[in-house]
Amino acid sequence: MLQYPEKIDAIGVVDSDWKHPKRVAFEPRTFGPKDIDIKIECCGVCGSDIHAAAGNWGDLPKPVVVGHEIIGTVVRKGSECTSEFEIGQRVGVGAQCYSCLKCHRCLNNNESYCDKCVTTYGQFFDDGYCSKGGYASHIRVNEHFVIPIPENIPSEYAGPLLCGGNTVFSPLLRNGCGPGKKVGILGIGGIGHMGLMFAKALGAEVYAISRTSKKKEDVFKLGADHFIATKEEPDWAEKYYDTLDLVIVCAGSLKDVDFDSLPRIMQVGGRIVSISVPEQSEKIVLKPFGLLGVLIANSHLGSIEEIKQLLKLVSEKNLRIWIEKYPINEANVNEVFERMEKGDVRYRYVFTDYDKEFN
Amino acid sequence: MLQYPEKIDAIGVVDSDWKHPKRVAFEPRTFGPKDIDIKIECCGVCGSDIHAAAGNWGDLPKPVVVGHEIIGTVVRKGSECTSEFEIGQRVGVGAQCYSCLKCHRCLNNNESYCDKCVTTYGQFFDDGYCSKGGYASHIRVNEHFVIPIPENIPSEYAGPLLCGGNTVFSPLLRNGCGPGKKVGILGIGGIGHMGLMFAKALGAEVYAISRTSKKKEDVFKLGADHFIATKEEPDWAEKYYDTLDLVIVCAGSLKDVDFDSLPRIMQVGGRIVSISVPEQSEKIVLKPFGLLGVLIANSHLGSIEEIKQLLKLVSEKNLRIWIEKYPINEANVNEVFERMEKGDVRYRYVFTDYDKEFN
Repeated sequence: MLQYPEKIDAIGVVDSDWKHPKRVAFEPRTFGPKDIDIKIECCGVCGSDIHAAAGNWGDLPKPVVVGHEIIGTVVRKGSECTSEFEIGQRVGVGAQCYSCLKCHRCLNNNESYCDKCVTTYGQFFDDGYCSKGGYASHIRVNEHFVIPIPENIPSEYAGPLLCGGNTVFSPLLRNGCGPGKKVGILGIGGIGHMGLMFAKALGAEVYAISRTSKKKEDVFKLGADHFIATKEEPDWAEKYYDTLDLVIVCAGSLKDVDFDSLPRIMQVGGRIVSISVPEQSEKIVLKPFGLLGVLIANSHLGSIEEIKQLLKLVSEKNLRIWIEKYPINEANVNEVFERMEKGDVRYRYVFTDYDKEFN
Repeated sequence: MLQYPEKIDAIGVVDSDWKHPKRVAFEPRTFGPKDIDIKIECCGVCGSDIHAAAGNWGDLPKPVVVGHEIIGTVVRKGSECTSEFEIGQRVGVGAQCYSCLKCHRCLNNNESYCDKCVTTYGQFFDDGYCSKGGYASHIRVNEHFVIPIPENIPSEYAGPLLCGGNTVFSPLLRNGCGPGKKVGILGIGGIGHMGLMFAKALGAEVYAISRTSKKKEDVFKLGADHFIATKEEPDWAEKYYDTLDLVIVCAGSLKDVDFDSLPRIMQVGGRIVSISVPEQSEKIVLKPFGLLGVLIANSHLGSIEEIKQLLKLVSEKNLRIWIEKYPINEANVNEVFERMEKGDVRYRYVFTDYDKEFN
């Protein structure tokens, strides 16, 4: 077992045939005194993985190694680490692996909005190294971005909380989701299904908003109190007029979101927060009068502090997200990429059995 | 003196030559038991007056009588009025004259967001009567929309507070303007100049944002602590990166507002609130990633309760907005319309001497 990796084994995109990643080995970033090396045990599959692998994030240096819902164990600590992680401790890494940790934003639990933010894969450090993610045997990360995992959350259920989960949890927290609030989750995919659970766990009255009623049964199991199928209820915007305090838009694309009608179902002062990471060409086009009294925002990754709060909530309420597991290997990464592209996922894939592939 | 008007004298638009309104007389709406008749003493001139007069609100029945920053005295009270107004009391009417007063929004100090909201001129009541405003001898209004005026505010300084003033005051209040907050006012016109005063009076650190430095001297006299001239400081968005908690966009048109750069100067969680009433064809186009962490909203008229709070603030702090007075008559309404169209106003016109014209 490679404890102190000089090379990291991975399954990465090596050429334009991005749907068929290959077994590769790459050199990690130089080990720094604040770094922690983690031996990876499993990793969730995020929509961003597909975007980056497919080249939508630009032409990244090969191999492109994605994955940022990582669970593993600490195998090495830098000499200047001040966190209390022990060798062998189970930890996680989400979608961010670096920021300056000194600026106003970093010092106020907004490190994901730091101008020096480096995401866990596909972004460049100041020294030119391009970050590489969790479809790999190990990862090397600044200790600030390493998160302890509560004992009662199994690893494969914890991984997806670290990116997808926190991406919807952060705007729920920051926009007052709680008892007495009516909260909508628009777009019931990987992130949306977690949004329903967390909004309910936070005490809100929860509205699932989908285009069709295909997922109607699921949303009630996940915690929704109400269901709106916008394509099947032509008068939905009038029926739910002046109802919601908050809507989190979890749709993968904003093209199908009706930003003219959505403000109608919001209360005055209500907030529409999009967490979508759409293609760069997509724009939000708003009629100035249509938005009257309603706020709209785009939320980024949540903070490390918020991940910790989310893990506490999931642990205390014993929540279990809905996942489908695949042992990691070339064939399975290919199959998952194909299924993700078709939207064939209920509701989050997690790659497991890292020991078998990378031993 | 006409105490109980059967016809109201006014200066209104009678044909397509909207810049030359004429002396007219019109029948008021039928007097209802909750109505109050007000003999008008003066009226501020709002940008909306020009829009409605020019036909930008659609082809309204003639005469089109505008004006919604009205000060006058109570001359008649309906039999079911419960408010404590006395005959002869000085009162005001802002931009809204009716709403249902029963719905969730009305009952929560959001009557301007009521679906039954009727603005003081240019909108239709359920009975088909088109509302007519304050370039007139009298106005008839439901008592809920009649506002007592504190003694120490002269009438001509009180009028513009009722629409323009409250339109910028409401989003300042609703979005946390106060001590410790950094608040920008973008667009230093009639409303913007009041925004600077009120933001300062509420205790914020105030940033005036204009295209050029033409109004630089004025903004500091009005209460600004900082001045940004976006056309003269090409690096303004970087210079003020991560600075503001709130920006109120008071520009008459959104075409010149740089919604790509503006989010850069906002803190995470900061809010950009537009109060502009642009032409219907104008859209706000946002890059999803450009808005990261920032909320944007469009605010409508403030509530009646907020007008009362504003009048209290102005009274207690003895604030004086900057106005230019014109005795009301055909020639002067024409001249003011011409000057408004050219943007030649420092910073609010008020029509006065109603007794001379309408006696």
